[in-house]
Amino acid sequence: MIAVEARLAIDDLFADYGAHLDADRLEDWLELFVEDCVYQIVPRENAELGLPVTLMLCENKDMLRDRIVSLRQANEYSIHTDKHLISKVRIKGKAGDSYAVEANYAMYQADNEGNGSLYSFGTYVDEVVFTDDGPKFRAKTVIVDNWSIPHMLSTPI
Amino acid sequence: MIAVEARLAIDDLFADYGAHLDADRLEDWLELFVEDCVYQIVPRENAELGLPVTLMLCENKDMLRDRIVSLRQANEYSIHTDKHLISKVRIKGKAGDSYAVEANYAMYQADNEGNGSLYSFGTYVDEVVFTDDGPKFRAKTVIVDNWSIPHMLSTPI
Amino acid sequence: MIAVEARLAIDDLFADYGAHLDADRLEDWLELFVEDCVYQIVPRENAELGLPVTLMLCENKDMLRDRIVSLRQANEYSIHTDKHLISKVRIKGKAGDSYAVEANYAMYQADNEGNGSLYSFGTYVDEVVFTDDGPKFRAKTVIVDNWSIPHMLSTPI
Repeated sequence: MIAVEARLAIDDLFADYGAHLDADRLEDWLELFVEDCVYQIVPRENAELGLPVTLMLCENKDMLRDRIVSLRQANEYSIHTDKHLISKVRIKGKAGDSYAVEANYAMYQADNEGNGSLYSFGTYVDEVVFTDDGPKFRAKTVIVDNWSIPHMLSTPI
Repeated sequence: MIAVEARLAIDDLFADYGAHLDADRLEDWLELFVEDCVYQIVPRENAELGLPVTLMLCENKDMLRDRIVSLRQANEYSIHTDKHLISKVRIKGKAGDSYAVEANYAMYQADNEGNGSLYSFGTYVDEVVFTDDGPKFRAKTVIVDNWSIPHMLSTPI
Repeated sequence: MIAVEARLAIDDLFADYGAHLDADRLEDWLELFVEDCVYQIVPRENAELGLPVTLMLCENKDMLRDRIVSLRQANEYSIHTDKHLISKVRIKGKAGDSYAVEANYAMYQADNEGNGSLYSFGTYVDEVVFTDDGPKFRAKTVIVDNWSIPHMLSTPI
């Protein structure tokens, strides 16, 4: 049985994850990862077949930093806003200081005219570690069910 | 660190909020607010630009009461049913007896023929106070991402 | 006040419920029910009018077993994948070893080409009992708001 405090802290980590992305606080979002991290977005079909193709792959925190810099320079105007709904986190196991956790998400987008729609849904399959600064993501794999996404994928999910 | 019991009680408040609206228990919903309360619905664009335009504004509980009476008299037949999905609540801070909290929501609607669709999504930015009768909303601001809503807004979100 | 541990265990039960269905682990999903269970899917209109018509009805665990066997034999190829978003569980009351609980859900589906959409949303109105093996469903009623579902209903919601 995982301690209640650890569970709630991991819940908070996921809530912060979604809220930072939704508010375009990408720099705060970055600080939810440890240095030695992996972030990837994978179509569900590929994940189930064990295929290595990803929609996005950052193999350490510097690659995430580069992506944020690139996003900040490329998009002078916000072309959409995101909204995450994230399910309760399932803690699947603990090995040493590392927790294997999963959660489902649905993400909606709205454009500048206030028109909104469902953008993506899927599952986070993650590894969380507790640091002196609270829980952080060591690995985050976004498995996308609707991988035939109509718009170009640029920002994290 | 917020006490576990306070967190769970605030979670329950939000769950009741959605469930009462979904079941058209508007009078029960009203009792989730203190007398000296503010309820407003604001387009995300206006919220970010600091513009004062609202889609709905009730500056105290009597104004909420009036709205409920009006809804009960105006709509003899239910023309739609709502369903709220509300994210885990983020407790952002505590000042005295007041908690600053946020949560994301998605709201779906169905008509009398059972046809359903996404209606609204956005963020609740709220102030919660603990009373002798448990936690209540002192202020609730519904920031709507998809503010170009296709149907007329009459009931609370 | 329900004990924190019981609340969290019921939360976990619902999270497992959705995750097992989403991953097509129907046999694991079955083990979330006690032997003497009822599972039914009901249109919201019928539930409110007290009409007995159901979209699916299994009056004990053997009927659920039969349905799973049937699904395994009938569908040689997966024609869709599901994704559940389930709200925080509302514990409405406790009588003996039985908890009356409710939660909202939204379920999305994707096809083999990765095209996804909202499939169903509604409310679970359930009875949960604690066994030696943790909490289980004694009764689960899925009340569907958008009961005019465009695709044939075959798998549980």
